[in-house]
Amino acid sequence: MPHEEDKLRDACGIFGIYDKDGYDVARMTYAGLFALQHRGQESCGIAVNDNRKITHHRGLGHVGDVFNDTELDSLKGQMAIGHVRYSTCDDKGLHNAQPLVSMYIKGQLAIAHNGKLSNYVALKKQLELSGAIFQTITDAEIMLHILARERMITGRAETALASIMKKLEGAYSIVMMTPQKLIACRDPLGMRPLCLGKMNNTYVIASESCALDTINATYIRDVDPGEIIIVDKNGLRTIRDNVIDRNDARLCIFEFIYFARSDSVIENMSVHEARKNTGAILAEVAPVDADMVIGVPDSGIDAAIGYATRSGIPYGKGLVINRYVGRTFIRATQSERVSAVQLKINVLKETIQGKRIIMIDDSIVRGTTSANLVAMLRDAGAKEVHMRISSPMFLNPCYYGIDIPSSDELFARKYSREEMRDIIGADSLEFFPVERLKDIVPQLDCGYCDACFTGNYPWRVPEEYCE
Amino acid sequence: MPHEEDKLRDACGIFGIYDKDGYDVARMTYAGLFALQHRGQESCGIAVNDNRKITHHRGLGHVGDVFNDTELDSLKGQMAIGHVRYSTCDDKGLHNAQPLVSMYIKGQLAIAHNGKLSNYVALKKQLELSGAIFQTITDAEIMLHILARERMITGRAETALASIMKKLEGAYSIVMMTPQKLIACRDPLGMRPLCLGKMNNTYVIASESCALDTINATYIRDVDPGEIIIVDKNGLRTIRDNVIDRNDARLCIFEFIYFARSDSVIENMSVHEARKNTGAILAEVAPVDADMVIGVPDSGIDAAIGYATRSGIPYGKGLVINRYVGRTFIRATQSERVSAVQLKINVLKETIQGKRIIMIDDSIVRGTTSANLVAMLRDAGAKEVHMRISSPMFLNPCYYGIDIPSSDELFARKYSREEMRDIIGADSLEFFPVERLKDIVPQLDCGYCDACFTGNYPWRVPEEYCE
Amino acid sequence: MPHEEDKLRDACGIFGIYDKDGYDVARMTYAGLFALQHRGQESCGIAVNDNRKITHHRGLGHVGDVFNDTELDSLKGQMAIGHVRYSTCDDKGLHNAQPLVSMYIKGQLAIAHNGKLSNYVALKKQLELSGAIFQTITDAEIMLHILARERMITGRAETALASIMKKLEGAYSIVMMTPQKLIACRDPLGMRPLCLGKMNNTYVIASESCALDTINATYIRDVDPGEIIIVDKNGLRTIRDNVIDRNDARLCIFEFIYFARSDSVIENMSVHEARKNTGAILAEVAPVDADMVIGVPDSGIDAAIGYATRSGIPYGKGLVINRYVGRTFIRATQSERVSAVQLKINVLKETIQGKRIIMIDDSIVRGTTSANLVAMLRDAGAKEVHMRISSPMFLNPCYYGIDIPSSDELFARKYSREEMRDIIGADSLEFFPVERLKDIVPQLDCGYCDACFTGNYPWRVPEEYCE
Amino acid sequence: MPHEEDKLRDACGIFGIYDKDGYDVARMTYAGLFALQHRGQESCGIAVNDNRKITHHRGLGHVGDVFNDTELDSLKGQMAIGHVRYSTCDDKGLHNAQPLVSMYIKGQLAIAHNGKLSNYVALKKQLELSGAIFQTITDAEIMLHILARERMITGRAETALASIMKKLEGAYSIVMMTPQKLIACRDPLGMRPLCLGKMNNTYVIASESCALDTINATYIRDVDPGEIIIVDKNGLRTIRDNVIDRNDARLCIFEFIYFARSDSVIENMSVHEARKNTGAILAEVAPVDADMVIGVPDSGIDAAIGYATRSGIPYGKGLVINRYVGRTFIRATQSERVSAVQLKINVLKETIQGKRIIMIDDSIVRGTTSANLVAMLRDAGAKEVHMRISSPMFLNPCYYGIDIPSSDELFARKYSREEMRDIIGADSLEFFPVERLKDIVPQLDCGYCDACFTGNYPWRVPEEYCE
Repeated sequence: MPHEEDKLRDACGIFGIYDKDGYDVARMTYAGLFALQHRGQESCGIAVNDNRKITHHRGLGHVGDVFNDTELDSLKGQMAIGHVRYSTCDDKGLHNAQPLVSMYIKGQLAIAHNGKLSNYVALKKQLELSGAIFQTITDAEIMLHILARERMITGRAETALASIMKKLEGAYSIVMMTPQKLIACRDPLGMRPLCLGKMNNTYVIASESCALDTINATYIRDVDPGEIIIVDKNGLRTIRDNVIDRNDARLCIFEFIYFARSDSVIENMSVHEARKNTGAILAEVAPVDADMVIGVPDSGIDAAIGYATRSGIPYGKGLVINRYVGRTFIRATQSERVSAVQLKINVLKETIQGKRIIMIDDSIVRGTTSANLVAMLRDAGAKEVHMRISSPMFLNPCYYGIDIPSSDELFARKYSREEMRDIIGADSLEFFPVERLKDIVPQLDCGYCDACFTGNYPWRVPEEYCE
Repeated sequence: MPHEEDKLRDACGIFGIYDKDGYDVARMTYAGLFALQHRGQESCGIAVNDNRKITHHRGLGHVGDVFNDTELDSLKGQMAIGHVRYSTCDDKGLHNAQPLVSMYIKGQLAIAHNGKLSNYVALKKQLELSGAIFQTITDAEIMLHILARERMITGRAETALASIMKKLEGAYSIVMMTPQKLIACRDPLGMRPLCLGKMNNTYVIASESCALDTINATYIRDVDPGEIIIVDKNGLRTIRDNVIDRNDARLCIFEFIYFARSDSVIENMSVHEARKNTGAILAEVAPVDADMVIGVPDSGIDAAIGYATRSGIPYGKGLVINRYVGRTFIRATQSERVSAVQLKINVLKETIQGKRIIMIDDSIVRGTTSANLVAMLRDAGAKEVHMRISSPMFLNPCYYGIDIPSSDELFARKYSREEMRDIIGADSLEFFPVERLKDIVPQLDCGYCDACFTGNYPWRVPEEYCE
Repeated sequence: MPHEEDKLRDACGIFGIYDKDGYDVARMTYAGLFALQHRGQESCGIAVNDNRKITHHRGLGHVGDVFNDTELDSLKGQMAIGHVRYSTCDDKGLHNAQPLVSMYIKGQLAIAHNGKLSNYVALKKQLELSGAIFQTITDAEIMLHILARERMITGRAETALASIMKKLEGAYSIVMMTPQKLIACRDPLGMRPLCLGKMNNTYVIASESCALDTINATYIRDVDPGEIIIVDKNGLRTIRDNVIDRNDARLCIFEFIYFARSDSVIENMSVHEARKNTGAILAEVAPVDADMVIGVPDSGIDAAIGYATRSGIPYGKGLVINRYVGRTFIRATQSERVSAVQLKINVLKETIQGKRIIMIDDSIVRGTTSANLVAMLRDAGAKEVHMRISSPMFLNPCYYGIDIPSSDELFARKYSREEMRDIIGADSLEFFPVERLKDIVPQLDCGYCDACFTGNYPWRVPEEYCE
Repeated sequence: MPHEEDKLRDACGIFGIYDKDGYDVARMTYAGLFALQHRGQESCGIAVNDNRKITHHRGLGHVGDVFNDTELDSLKGQMAIGHVRYSTCDDKGLHNAQPLVSMYIKGQLAIAHNGKLSNYVALKKQLELSGAIFQTITDAEIMLHILARERMITGRAETALASIMKKLEGAYSIVMMTPQKLIACRDPLGMRPLCLGKMNNTYVIASESCALDTINATYIRDVDPGEIIIVDKNGLRTIRDNVIDRNDARLCIFEFIYFARSDSVIENMSVHEARKNTGAILAEVAPVDADMVIGVPDSGIDAAIGYATRSGIPYGKGLVINRYVGRTFIRATQSERVSAVQLKINVLKETIQGKRIIMIDDSIVRGTTSANLVAMLRDAGAKEVHMRISSPMFLNPCYYGIDIPSSDELFARKYSREEMRDIIGADSLEFFPVERLKDIVPQLDCGYCDACFTGNYPWRVPEEYCE
């Protein structure tokens, strides 16, 4: 789906690497962040640890714009962590970019975080009352504060981390560097993904397995919900004090439906296959007679293939995306004659003309993009346009790292299904049935979070959102 | 196909607009160039004509980088022409960017060109002998010189253009602005595409129809081979003195196979449908038993859909492209542990594993990318990999605007078919049969050029290439 | 003196403004920072307070490079503080740029600092032991921490500031913004300058009075050593709890000799007149028969005029500085045929030739620049070159904000006077007599610090420097 | 004088170097252009000739901004020419930057020009009539055209140059590169300066001798009016066909008064000494009783020293210039509370207060800056302010490279002397007497042009200016 303002956005991707031979960790991190760029395009950064001294470079924009050869060459070391970021609040300044590098009683500490603490406000208030100052509005800074205080009474960074995890609510996959160790952990509910890979003697941690593939590392497994992984000169070890029963974990199901890259594997499940399954299930539960199934590029393609395969209706390419518009902000022309969607996407008229089309997209946030696309298909001569959405209706805000419109702006909350169909202008409109979510990753051996569809939150809703 | 150095490159895209109400011509051109960005990413420019005064802005890089709101706001006028460019020689400086804006006895003259004059060297020598100086190595400057001299004896710009077309050999689709007119023409053989569109009273000229779609203009027709179109305050008129029998035209067939965007229509033929046809024909002539057909993104996707449909073998997504790597130059890591292909493309392991794969790409230039991709598929567990190329073997250089390796670097010229298969590492390798080219656009009502496959050149080969 | 690497550098300039009508505070601050640019050229920043909400922009480089119209237009408010900075340590990153903007229990707090805490290390250690984390290595962050903790027990920001000043050792002139107040203070010894100005109802604070002149504000007086000034909607008030006897204050005498701009007034004393006095006194104590007195531009000009006036030897222009080299880093040519000094300065040969020259400079740090200049004068035909330095010999490190070479690199410490003269190549070399320092600002009604010349430090020397 | 919009501007500086050992010519040119930066700050460029192949780099802005190490390293060769430029017309685009590099029948040709052809329009018209096209509006392009045509009938570049010089009217000092030669020439009237230097076997050509000093080259002599100098592998030779009687030459006298850098030597005359002479003569012809003589920095300083010396009134520093404002465009604050002059210059109040001041500036163009400065001095408490201008009244436009306001905007033309004094607000105002111009460079052995003061033009006034 092309119109960025009309998409849900995730809150970051992280990467960490420990190579005791110190071979090119910054460039490996750079390549890894490229593979994770879809998880955050607003700012990025890399911190390296060279013989216990941590330096870093951060900037606003894409990985390819923020780093150049000179920068990368200057970042030498044996460990590195990296971060790409969307803001989850109105905090776009460079000072909120990560990794956050800090000094405390034990020396330097660098951290990169994906997720969102749902008790951020409460934790911050508590810290403020004891005199803490804050230079960012990131969860990472909260964690640094708590960790620094815990270190006063706990011997090791990883033990302190294990201890403070009990105070944190919400989602957090993190990578950290101390002068001597690379540490990673995933919150006890495992809400955001985090995986472990290896190449030769080098360990790699990444938000998604696609980042491991990019640098030719082998995917070993996901970090377990609640698990802490420590890599140092003695190799890898793990702390499992906060690990709970996998069935009680709450992995964000929307990672499968939209956020993760389709070539990633999360908890051993292929994201692409999960998306094909959403299409196949839609073909079962919301069938319609048609001549061609098309996907909204890029995120609707996988589900469209699944729908086509299951239904037997031919898969086709009906929309073309302009790869070059991506990073560019184009003010709509003064004349408003050209819509932002049109700049990014075009219809294959000759292919669409006279046909009954099933168009699959992964979600509807505000509905504007969908309405535009349906109109473009009709202009191209489509006889019928049936819209199928590969996620359930998005009815509730997410407090764990997804940047969503406020409740009253949510399309599915403002309108009845018939109104939605009418606004979009489709001949029919069907959403993925929420009760079938479990079937998109049938072999998944841990629990998942579907609060944005069901309102079934794993943590109490932050007070500041309750009124 | 991801590895840019291993691709053929076209020599530019052009755009022109005449809106007597002077409404936003620069932004329209900007949007149009965005849609044509695939035709040239090295430099770009826009020239506008505001009440007979021509100003321009050009720069190195993508349209989105070269222009910002301030720039666009400063470019006011009633006419505009634009250009995106690949160099066809070693001439990457900004001074070779277009549109080229010049002054001569009749005032200002701006020109943007797509194609390549095959008698460039001869024409330049002739001009030099009469004292001409050159500040660029573009064909456009040659044309400006000849035109300026012709104007000494011919009354109007368009008449002069009609006259000098007889001296030009090779490919040239051009748009020009005089103080009062927008003029476009296509060489008599129509080697490069050029089409005409309209919205309200505004006429638009573009290399491809996708540029018209982007700004909501209606495609009227292609400019005819040899035709000159003039738009001024009196509307549109045409000069057909150089128009020949359509059967004798020689439209570049490779525009259908690779260069043009799949949503464009050239001479009323859908590019996407042409590409599906290449796949379908390959399914007929080079069948193989397999479990899945995949395309190399983005350019192999259309043919793969065609192959899958005709063969009945399921279409699948086996490769994912990283959209963000696009513009970035990434030096391979020092360790060489990460290849450029890997940074751009990844395999969907779970989908590929254990399957017999047919992989479709549009061309093979040097073979390195294909070899990489086959290896990646095998690593992912593919049982068999059958490579199908949707173009014939590329055996001859092009003198009309395609930037190709020299003869002795051409993959298909250096190796036998079995050697090629062996180098690529595929279980089988088949090319599109050259004799079936006519079937990919069966309704095409004009002749086409396939010299790069057949050596059957429409113009004498430039002497400087003969030895 | 032209060669920047061979100069002493100050540690920052600060600026603050409160205009309840909110008229253009960012641009006023921008203009003020321009006037203070000589105090720090490495990074700069402006923070504005718009109806209790503080935002900021900082960057590496000069004021004119970091801010443009767009930036300035976006910084609206009723209060602003600004900062220009040299690093006093190896901490050139943007994250060390100021103003530092922080959140704590009472909301936002922004601070900009000039000076150096000599008990920084001790204070930091103490904070770390209670769990504090640090994201910069600035004194400002230390002060923010201490202030935040003090606010737990003290009602108002200014009261807390008055209280923590007792814990701070060393030099600190600061401006701060809380949501409602602009607060400024100068350390009890008044080591760095800070003055107060006004225009209409707008109060302005600046490191030097030249910043007031730039924006047409009237100089009122210097902030007293130890004084805290608070400006809010009720006007200006002052806290004098930490004010001591002016005779015990220790204003840096080097501000008069070199750091401050010659058009500034510090404690009612004209910097230009003080510099002329250094020259006049040198003429008395180190006279020599000569034909012309010249100053090394720009910093030696004032003393040269004073020397010429007192001695009766004509003042002349013997050296020309290239104004454009300023900001540019020029790698010496590979051939080393061109020295950095030569790129910046040139000799007026015709004027120098055959003359006996007295050349005045303000200081000698490493001696290289002086040696270069003497050689250039001799090449130009000077018969004699007598060097006079308008400061005493620099023998001791400064712990209060001047970035000096380590003791063992100090020219005057490594060599005897005769060796120095020999290295420089002058016919004679004389320094300003340390016992006459009081005579350069005879009316100054407060004590001054001359520790860099005498070793007579106002605070204990930090332990980390003692071995 | 600080306010750039209120200054006269010269039309460029040029530089050329031939070092057969090819040692660092680009960096030498870079250093040379730095020294010439005062002659043009709008754009600059360097072209190098490496074994007969010419490449170049140009850009908008200062030398230090346009070139970096990478750029300079890529510019290798045995010859180089460089250019800094002010536009003399409304032609600020990069395409008008020089050196202009062109190809013609004999290969490549690069040219850099200082001056202005007064028959530009006539020459251009003539060329257009024979079909010439123009991509810039520079005189250099006109010369390239004429030269290219002349080469058709003349054997060598330098012979052709000698021949076409007869067709050119106005001012032109040029440096050129052919594949094998560095060629320089000065127009027969020698209107703009050009000098020759040497270091070892390397010959250097520059607009001013300060550029030679910068790279440690020895000044040999000025290129003679009308002389052509050729440097190639055989060394230096000269063509003197167009050399006329030195008394008939017309060197621009304003180079001495304002344009040239004070450390330069033109026709063996020191610019600084000439300026001191203007001051001394003013002291004779326009004496006034006063306490101090000050100069408007930087350009009035030399004359002020001369005035002080001759009159016996003490020289003082009364104004300080902010070195950092230089390159920055600062929009006056919205409030207009801060004038552009104030941002750049400040008064030394304590020094000025109560004194009768003689303030020397080099010229008055529109009068605004002078009025501002007088007001600032009065605000600072000056008892009297006597303004002395070290040039005669500027009454006529210049057609030879000085960018001046149109006649009706010229201060001295619009107002009587008393009105001028009144507008400026000075107690008295005197200009340099035009009849004494010869005395500022009494030993000068060639004629000079003072047309801007006298209207006595050396060439017919271009028709397009006559009405």
